[in-house]
Amino acid sequence: MSGPKKAKRGIPNKSDFNAWYPAIVEIADLVDKRYPIKGMDVWKPYGLKSMNLIDGLARREMARTGHEEHRFPLLVPEDLLEKENRLVSRLKAARAAGVDPNELRIDEEESGFKKEVYWVTKGGENELEIPMFLRPTSETPMYTMFALWVRSHADLPLKTFQIVNTFRYETKQTRSFIRVREIHFFEAHTVHANKEGADAQIEEDADMVQSIMHDLCLPSLVSKRPVWDTFPGAWYTKAADVIMPNGRTLQVATYHHYKDQWAGAFDLTYEDSDGSTKPCHQTTFGMSERLLGAVVGMHGDDNGLIMPPAVAPIQIVIMPIAQHVDPNVMKAVHALSDELNTAGFRVHVDERDLRPGAKHFDWEIKGVPLRVEIGPRDLASSSCLVSIRTGGKEQLPLDGFNNSARKLLDSMASTLRSNAQTIADGLVHTFPGFVKGDDDTLIVNEPIVDGFVYELAFDGSDSDAEILEKSTGLTLLGESDTPFPEPTPCAVTGKLTTRRQHIARMY
Amino acid sequence: MSGPKKAKRGIPNKSDFNAWYPAIVEIADLVDKRYPIKGMDVWKPYGLKSMNLIDGLARREMARTGHEEHRFPLLVPEDLLEKENRLVSRLKAARAAGVDPNELRIDEEESGFKKEVYWVTKGGENELEIPMFLRPTSETPMYTMFALWVRSHADLPLKTFQIVNTFRYETKQTRSFIRVREIHFFEAHTVHANKEGADAQIEEDADMVQSIMHDLCLPSLVSKRPVWDTFPGAWYTKAADVIMPNGRTLQVATYHHYKDQWAGAFDLTYEDSDGSTKPCHQTTFGMSERLLGAVVGMHGDDNGLIMPPAVAPIQIVIMPIAQHVDPNVMKAVHALSDELNTAGFRVHVDERDLRPGAKHFDWEIKGVPLRVEIGPRDLASSSCLVSIRTGGKEQLPLDGFNNSARKLLDSMASTLRSNAQTIADGLVHTFPGFVKGDDDTLIVNEPIVDGFVYELAFDGSDSDAEILEKSTGLTLLGESDTPFPEPTPCAVTGKLTTRRQHIARMY
Repeated sequence: MSGPKKAKRGIPNKSDFNAWYPAIVEIADLVDKRYPIKGMDVWKPYGLKSMNLIDGLARREMARTGHEEHRFPLLVPEDLLEKENRLVSRLKAARAAGVDPNELRIDEEESGFKKEVYWVTKGGENELEIPMFLRPTSETPMYTMFALWVRSHADLPLKTFQIVNTFRYETKQTRSFIRVREIHFFEAHTVHANKEGADAQIEEDADMVQSIMHDLCLPSLVSKRPVWDTFPGAWYTKAADVIMPNGRTLQVATYHHYKDQWAGAFDLTYEDSDGSTKPCHQTTFGMSERLLGAVVGMHGDDNGLIMPPAVAPIQIVIMPIAQHVDPNVMKAVHALSDELNTAGFRVHVDERDLRPGAKHFDWEIKGVPLRVEIGPRDLASSSCLVSIRTGGKEQLPLDGFNNSARKLLDSMASTLRSNAQTIADGLVHTFPGFVKGDDDTLIVNEPIVDGFVYELAFDGSDSDAEILEKSTGLTLLGESDTPFPEPTPCAVTGKLTTRRQHIARMY
Repeated sequence: MSGPKKAKRGIPNKSDFNAWYPAIVEIADLVDKRYPIKGMDVWKPYGLKSMNLIDGLARREMARTGHEEHRFPLLVPEDLLEKENRLVSRLKAARAAGVDPNELRIDEEESGFKKEVYWVTKGGENELEIPMFLRPTSETPMYTMFALWVRSHADLPLKTFQIVNTFRYETKQTRSFIRVREIHFFEAHTVHANKEGADAQIEEDADMVQSIMHDLCLPSLVSKRPVWDTFPGAWYTKAADVIMPNGRTLQVATYHHYKDQWAGAFDLTYEDSDGSTKPCHQTTFGMSERLLGAVVGMHGDDNGLIMPPAVAPIQIVIMPIAQHVDPNVMKAVHALSDELNTAGFRVHVDERDLRPGAKHFDWEIKGVPLRVEIGPRDLASSSCLVSIRTGGKEQLPLDGFNNSARKLLDSMASTLRSNAQTIADGLVHTFPGFVKGDDDTLIVNEPIVDGFVYELAFDGSDSDAEILEKSTGLTLLGESDTPFPEPTPCAVTGKLTTRRQHIARMY
């Protein structure tokens, strides 16, 4: 690949995160935002390579767990939605019958869907008889086909995934990777013979998310979303949220347990070994380019990106020094580059006719983990000088540099992980609690500070949650996977509970 | 991956190609055509794997030639077309001024474009102010951005590509891979400082196409398309066509030399080293899932697919025989599988509890190049029995089987290449020539036989070509890259020429 043509300046300080983030995605050449539709960025080669490497992590997990890659059509005819509407109606009826009181919220979801998609209404000059929408996700097209594929218990479990472009008619402010209108999306959909199969799948999903987050060096909060924030048709929804440096949380992965709720709507049944017909149980697991947004936002600094080694398009850049003075320099550079390439590292040799300082500056912006200089003085000692993107320099022998590089990258990943954990921990405050105002209203004890996530014990009802959200202006992420070790008084009701929850401003 | 659940029967004879092709794509589990929009198939894992391997060949060529992968938005606002229309108007004006007489054909192209795209007219419940279309190809979105990216001669050449979904509102009969409405598409777009740069790019494109066709074991006709079949805005268009077994030609790759014609419309200029502003020269190179259609159609037989080793999702399937009788069988099977995997082969072990005959039957349908059986008798002689998909069996030593497998796959690829060449050659007939009818009309000397491509010397004008096409009902592919060695009389005008051309029924 060709390096950046010239050093680019004008990176805002990262302390001003809301200025830094939108600037760095363009300065580091991940995307170009000048395409004439807002929220539809052009992926530049460096950004696309990072994203492809993140996709590679997802594919690795999918292969390990026996999911197979499919690709479903982008366009969905409107009439396929009837099944989905049927599902929503059924749930409504069930809830009206006393199972759950959130009728109104379901209504919002139902009409909300049509508000959030792009509609294809014309083919050529013809109005289409049945309008089609661009998939926001693929439940409808997939489950239509699954109903044809699943016949007997021998067809189960069916474990599928796809990595595709999805669309959302976004009316809020768009942000590269975080809130876009064409979304690079990963979705896995599974079908099981029974609830236990789907339960186990949810466990597997949680495990895969953690494995990917480990490689991305990102800590996350894992929560079970409140009922009203559960995906329509899901029994429950779990999500991983990354706390970004400005204290807002970014939902980067969700997994939904559908039980047999969708199966009813799509006639997804199978013949069991005893000849009986049974409904299938299903799950969905979704991630997107937001993972790259979290990587950019969490790890970067005032000098640019810092790419975790697992997804750095270039892990090691080699810079010859004074190569015109000593012809052995380029020989050594190419020998090292070949050796590292063969060992499986992603390496780039920067032969541009620029001062070393300018090169360092460029590769710092791009967040390359290791920058290696080789000049005549280094050759004299058969060594090279390595600058580590998270800080520090080491003079290391050329002999066996493979192993040194591997260790440096591993250690850099650990540093990123612990730095990110420190940042995230520092952004989580304990909720200050309520005092009773006049006429029994609840008032937050201390002013809510913008830029923090608040942790609290919460065991209240939906209306208690509404009080919590309204009085703080924050959103309930849901019940944490990590309960309090000791019973703690619920912030609203005061009753003792170990249910740890978080409220935050969500992206 | 899991194998097919049971042997599927009902493959039509390949001699009835028009029945065989649409059947085999589903029987071999490449796609499912039951999605409720015609021409939008669901890619099943086996089909998607083949396609990904074909994409891998394209990416290999792109990396070798210094093209970088980008990704541009799918949606194009209608007003961006103004530039394209300006281009077409300019060309029209130029041609009206005597440069070229094909004004009418250009008009058709202009209005044809809008007839062939899907239009997004609504976002949620709002009519969009400016309708957007789903890209059929990406000239308009790309060149809008290129005009921002290219400033000086140092930015050139700009060599880009993307692999994306494109769309075409297809009104003709759809066929999997061959004529679909959502198209898995490869497109490379380059920008050069001058015509010579673009000339060299066209040579490089031709070379890349041949390299890919070699791996796919497909012979092709390379032709310069007639003016009226040239891509709008192109100076000239070259194409590679595969002659399918039914004698119809399938255009699988095109490359276009734009000179500086698009640059004018998109203000694509650069500052040269002398400070002057110059227009850029451009080329485009396109391929699609049709490559997979050609592979399926050309190589398959009455028993199913035959996958060229370079793009076979499974190159070698290993089948244990009587493994319940002798525990050493599975040990040997896994040892061989591990060894072949490590050596870079794509291997699958078929442990299903089925008769060997049923397994052979399944893997023949899927076109797996080599099927290896290992049973107690084979172990006694430390060997295995290999069935080759193009015919023949060999008993080979397990020791050093790596090398044997490599040789067998290479030899099988050669067989496929020569079989395909023989098929294609047999489908090309010499054009029988014309006789003068009453009132000087031309009548083809012998009846044109459906299912053949005709070769002829042709050096006539556009109206001569029209006579040729009308009187034969076939389409002129254009001037072959391989001229006649000796001057030969033009089929229409009778004047001597070495220009070899082909007429055919095109897909």
